[in-house]
Amino acid sequence: MTLTHPDRLFPTDPALRDQARALYESVRDLPIISPHGHCDPVWFAEDKRFPNPAELFVVPDHYVFRMLASQGVPMDALGVPRIDGGPVETDPRAIWRRFAEHFHLFRGTPSAMWLDHSFEHVFGLDVPLSTETADHYYDHIEAKLATDAYRPRAHFENFNVEVLATTEGALDDLRWHRMIRESGWTGRIVTTYRPDAVVDPEFEGFADNVRALGEMTGEDTSSWAGYLAAHRNRRAAFKEFGATATDHGHPSARTEDLATADAEALFQKALAGATTAEEADVFRGHMLTKMARMSLDDGLVMQIHPGSRRNHNARVFQRHGRDKGFDIPGRTDYVAALKPLLDAIGMEPGLTIILFTLDETAYGRELAPMAGAYPVLKLGPPWWFFDSFEGIKRFREATTETCGFYNTAGFNDDTRAFCSIPARHDVARRSDCAYLATLVGTGRLRETEAFEVAKDLSYSLAKSAYNL
Amino acid sequence: MTLTHPDRLFPTDPALRDQARALYESVRDLPIISPHGHCDPVWFAEDKRFPNPAELFVVPDHYVFRMLASQGVPMDALGVPRIDGGPVETDPRAIWRRFAEHFHLFRGTPSAMWLDHSFEHVFGLDVPLSTETADHYYDHIEAKLATDAYRPRAHFENFNVEVLATTEGALDDLRWHRMIRESGWTGRIVTTYRPDAVVDPEFEGFADNVRALGEMTGEDTSSWAGYLAAHRNRRAAFKEFGATATDHGHPSARTEDLATADAEALFQKALAGATTAEEADVFRGHMLTKMARMSLDDGLVMQIHPGSRRNHNARVFQRHGRDKGFDIPGRTDYVAALKPLLDAIGMEPGLTIILFTLDETAYGRELAPMAGAYPVLKLGPPWWFFDSFEGIKRFREATTETCGFYNTAGFNDDTRAFCSIPARHDVARRSDCAYLATLVGTGRLRETEAFEVAKDLSYSLAKSAYNL
Amino acid sequence: MTLTHPDRLFPTDPALRDQARALYESVRDLPIISPHGHCDPVWFAEDKRFPNPAELFVVPDHYVFRMLASQGVPMDALGVPRIDGGPVETDPRAIWRRFAEHFHLFRGTPSAMWLDHSFEHVFGLDVPLSTETADHYYDHIEAKLATDAYRPRAHFENFNVEVLATTEGALDDLRWHRMIRESGWTGRIVTTYRPDAVVDPEFEGFADNVRALGEMTGEDTSSWAGYLAAHRNRRAAFKEFGATATDHGHPSARTEDLATADAEALFQKALAGATTAEEADVFRGHMLTKMARMSLDDGLVMQIHPGSRRNHNARVFQRHGRDKGFDIPGRTDYVAALKPLLDAIGMEPGLTIILFTLDETAYGRELAPMAGAYPVLKLGPPWWFFDSFEGIKRFREATTETCGFYNTAGFNDDTRAFCSIPARHDVARRSDCAYLATLVGTGRLRETEAFEVAKDLSYSLAKSAYNL
Repeated sequence: MTLTHPDRLFPTDPALRDQARALYESVRDLPIISPHGHCDPVWFAEDKRFPNPAELFVVPDHYVFRMLASQGVPMDALGVPRIDGGPVETDPRAIWRRFAEHFHLFRGTPSAMWLDHSFEHVFGLDVPLSTETADHYYDHIEAKLATDAYRPRAHFENFNVEVLATTEGALDDLRWHRMIRESGWTGRIVTTYRPDAVVDPEFEGFADNVRALGEMTGEDTSSWAGYLAAHRNRRAAFKEFGATATDHGHPSARTEDLATADAEALFQKALAGATTAEEADVFRGHMLTKMARMSLDDGLVMQIHPGSRRNHNARVFQRHGRDKGFDIPGRTDYVAALKPLLDAIGMEPGLTIILFTLDETAYGRELAPMAGAYPVLKLGPPWWFFDSFEGIKRFREATTETCGFYNTAGFNDDTRAFCSIPARHDVARRSDCAYLATLVGTGRLRETEAFEVAKDLSYSLAKSAYNL
Repeated sequence: MTLTHPDRLFPTDPALRDQARALYESVRDLPIISPHGHCDPVWFAEDKRFPNPAELFVVPDHYVFRMLASQGVPMDALGVPRIDGGPVETDPRAIWRRFAEHFHLFRGTPSAMWLDHSFEHVFGLDVPLSTETADHYYDHIEAKLATDAYRPRAHFENFNVEVLATTEGALDDLRWHRMIRESGWTGRIVTTYRPDAVVDPEFEGFADNVRALGEMTGEDTSSWAGYLAAHRNRRAAFKEFGATATDHGHPSARTEDLATADAEALFQKALAGATTAEEADVFRGHMLTKMARMSLDDGLVMQIHPGSRRNHNARVFQRHGRDKGFDIPGRTDYVAALKPLLDAIGMEPGLTIILFTLDETAYGRELAPMAGAYPVLKLGPPWWFFDSFEGIKRFREATTETCGFYNTAGFNDDTRAFCSIPARHDVARRSDCAYLATLVGTGRLRETEAFEVAKDLSYSLAKSAYNL
Repeated sequence: MTLTHPDRLFPTDPALRDQARALYESVRDLPIISPHGHCDPVWFAEDKRFPNPAELFVVPDHYVFRMLASQGVPMDALGVPRIDGGPVETDPRAIWRRFAEHFHLFRGTPSAMWLDHSFEHVFGLDVPLSTETADHYYDHIEAKLATDAYRPRAHFENFNVEVLATTEGALDDLRWHRMIRESGWTGRIVTTYRPDAVVDPEFEGFADNVRALGEMTGEDTSSWAGYLAAHRNRRAAFKEFGATATDHGHPSARTEDLATADAEALFQKALAGATTAEEADVFRGHMLTKMARMSLDDGLVMQIHPGSRRNHNARVFQRHGRDKGFDIPGRTDYVAALKPLLDAIGMEPGLTIILFTLDETAYGRELAPMAGAYPVLKLGPPWWFFDSFEGIKRFREATTETCGFYNTAGFNDDTRAFCSIPARHDVARRSDCAYLATLVGTGRLRETEAFEVAKDLSYSLAKSAYNL
């Protein structure tokens, strides 16, 4: 028995299915380019074994524990740590059993497909997870994790990853990246510059963060000029550890292009903790344009991930902190928001800005029309909740007709669940091949073109968009 | 000849069609759970015959007369009553003929499918309705309506309805529900508490309504405490007549959680008719949170139906009043709007809030992400204009990947057209089975799971979400 | 070899494909009704040959050059004229080669389908366009253009166009339309009244434009009454040259219905160049209602095309001017925006207002619910970026269930690319037949009805909606 259907995600019409399968077979074994994600570099630096099945699949994965929480399983009972250090479930087998007992909640979700793929293809399991099989699963996975073949570096190689980008804050000392490099291991792990904590006046400890940025770089970050110099310094340091990109997670896509004196005054106000919500937003928006200008100089690709209303529930945020499944997308404007940045640098050669969205209504209305005109813009793949068969289908259907394939940037897995990397790329490759097969079958694309595009979507576009 | 295709709404690919049919056959004969709708309890209390075909199918159904109005048939000519009591068409046969003459307008609409289903399966008709067959239809239906088998209670039983919820305003004396109970008839009809008229400061006669609420309950509703006590009193009275739920039809999903003194002051202002539009909105929003807190105490499930811009045309509203097909959906925010309520009670065990929307963009962007995290939230089925094959398809495709099936609440027919109840549940069951068959055929769900889910969507989820 | 698939855009399921093909064959050869577009009347007045392949397919088509610009090809290199008259590429063969070299960018887009259709069906080409075939294409097309059979009037007849509407500004002297009429040629070319330049206080040279309007009409346009009289005068003049419609391209769908004194004061302020952005918006909105009232008198159908944020990039606008592919759609509200106009004239018999949108979220949420109720409203076909297979599919799926087919207005090609007219109508007919076949195959429409509807969507509805 297999947990996954060999023709999953392909069209069911026999002619289209054959076409999709042929396209998929041509890209299935291409190396994985993972240009954006949240794997922890310490895994590859230390190459220690993963602690247990619960710590691998449940405790760190907000896709998983939020679904159980939505049906009344307290996060404490799933081992999700409390901010105050108070007691939560510590028995990994108990956590695993709770997860198994509720596994039917994931029916029809990409999480189920990722998990089944990992269970079958990474761990060799062949019965569905359920209350009855929970212990069998636990023991089987635990035994595997104890072997050298299941350590991070071995996985990285088995997964056929050509390059994997992690994401570090501006203040990260990149020690794990240094340790990876110094280890002599040849797996290609690169970092990404994520400056939110030193760019967003509303971030916890903003002024302290900016001060620390000064200390790290030897720049006087109490001045606007020194602050910008410190960013340039850190960007260069990240580039030394392979970074080819920056990443910006703002509540909105707002950009500004202030006069220097105004920017400087706003920066001082932000350092003093005196900005209004509106002023903080202006400052973040101005920093996007500054970052784009720095990218013109140093060649880092810019990623903008806007639109998440983070930490939606006050009680959960107080108890468990950030990134706990309570980040909810909201309406996001791009057409007005990006105009200041695009007026400033939208037509520049040699700059790439990759846009993401959690508001799918923007795909056809704003994002594809902009990416189909501005040379600096490319569209990132469906993100977060939309990293799924239907999400990818909607993305392609809503954007291709307006901006084609070559204004998109391939696939990102964007995951902190290491074992799901092959599963996610497999879903993306299958979904794109299903879409291409449909285009061929309906006379919208020639078959020879479809094979080229399949490779581009699965491999080449991510590599070229991110200069990897 | 049949008016309805035996495999309607199933995928046309033969393998998927067989799968869909098998799933459908497993749920087709399950009893109907109708947890939300607008049937008139007087039908079941008095069990009188329906007056004539026009009064059954045309005059009370805004889906029907709005479509004819959109093509220039005046509502007066369809017998839609005027507020001023002025003359409108009174000849039911003339109304029926006008309806028949324009029946092609409904091509491709769910109304056509509901009507054809009723014509064939309830009335045994076997030729399409048209100008030519109008009189045949009229005479045939009229003859059936004259028989005992076509009275409301007989229908209720023939339709295999296990339980049907009506909706009554807070000031309703529930006399028909009492009469049903006292009649000894065993059909299960329950009420639902709909307090809009005593919760919305902008509702016609708000202050008088609140005064009447006080008289009904013996509470002093001129005080905030008395007003809340009166609500509790009415909720208890509704529970006595089977209510398991409340229903709230607000222009937006805005919620607030005011300090008591502020709420009290605003309530007094509302009683005095002195609230601004903004203050009225705040008051409605605060009352949603109050109602949620009362639900924590008394266990009533809460339904929120936001986003309709009611009575869009001034002339139609003046001439014909409310609910005349000129309620138009508008953009509706949930992520910011619901935050105060969810901060207050979003993580409470034992509370269920069912959210509806007329803004489909919220399905994937806001509603499914929230329902997939908050234990109190469930998603109601596609509502009003979206209670249709494509509407259900979009709903499932946009929500399942993020919140699964088990954060949804089964089907509601939400109808005031009694004969369409079996038709609507049939459309929902077929549409869901079509979706499930597609998941099975594309390797996203196992066949055994699909049979379980089909039963859950058709029957069990509605029953459990509404505690019925 | 053919460039286009004979069954393109039809469903791939064999039964559905046969049904779609049968429907398509019944409408394929119907004459083309082109009630809205931007062909230049000078073509038909002078009937000169088109200058060269680049001027025919690349230089004037923003769909084409924007896509190349998005991948870094400067517009100058494509011969797009500069406002300052500075040098741009003038060698048509060089432009053509650049286009050919980048033709893969159009994979999966409607532009590729329109172009391939023209290449094959208008020019008789049978190899795909590429770097290798660029010169072959150029020489082949150039040779054809030199023949009489490829002049505009011959094409018009070969394309089987029954009537074609162009669009002229209110100040246009209609000389080309006069010349066409006086030539004795029988091709039916009609104009359309587009008054944006004399209705929008923010239009370049508004006051001068209004003065010129006065001079053209002999009315005193410095007064409100004279200004309105001048509009009536021009509308009558346009009607003399066949106009059956007006067209209004506003940033939003906002309407107002001001008291006369307020309108008059605002008009004076606009003439003085003293309106704020908000006041300019109010004035435009009021003029929509005035235009609707004039339509009640003179019978011109009204078209509203809102929602484009024009000239998004400041640099491109300064260098190349309007209509250069940098018009980006934005969110567009209809439900609140249209209420003043609809309260004023929404229920009037004998008036038709055709609504377009660039915000597809409005289809199901606002536009179909309004068109399914208001007798004056009809929905225009998918516009601009959405004039494509997926765009048409989404339009039908989102609107049909709510407002049916008969509240829609058939197809518009809306093009300035003359050779794409047959291609665009062919895409629309195929896409609609594909949709209808799916409805038949899933029991949502009877086959006999589908044949009637296919003809209505392809021909009759456009003709009747525009009184052509």
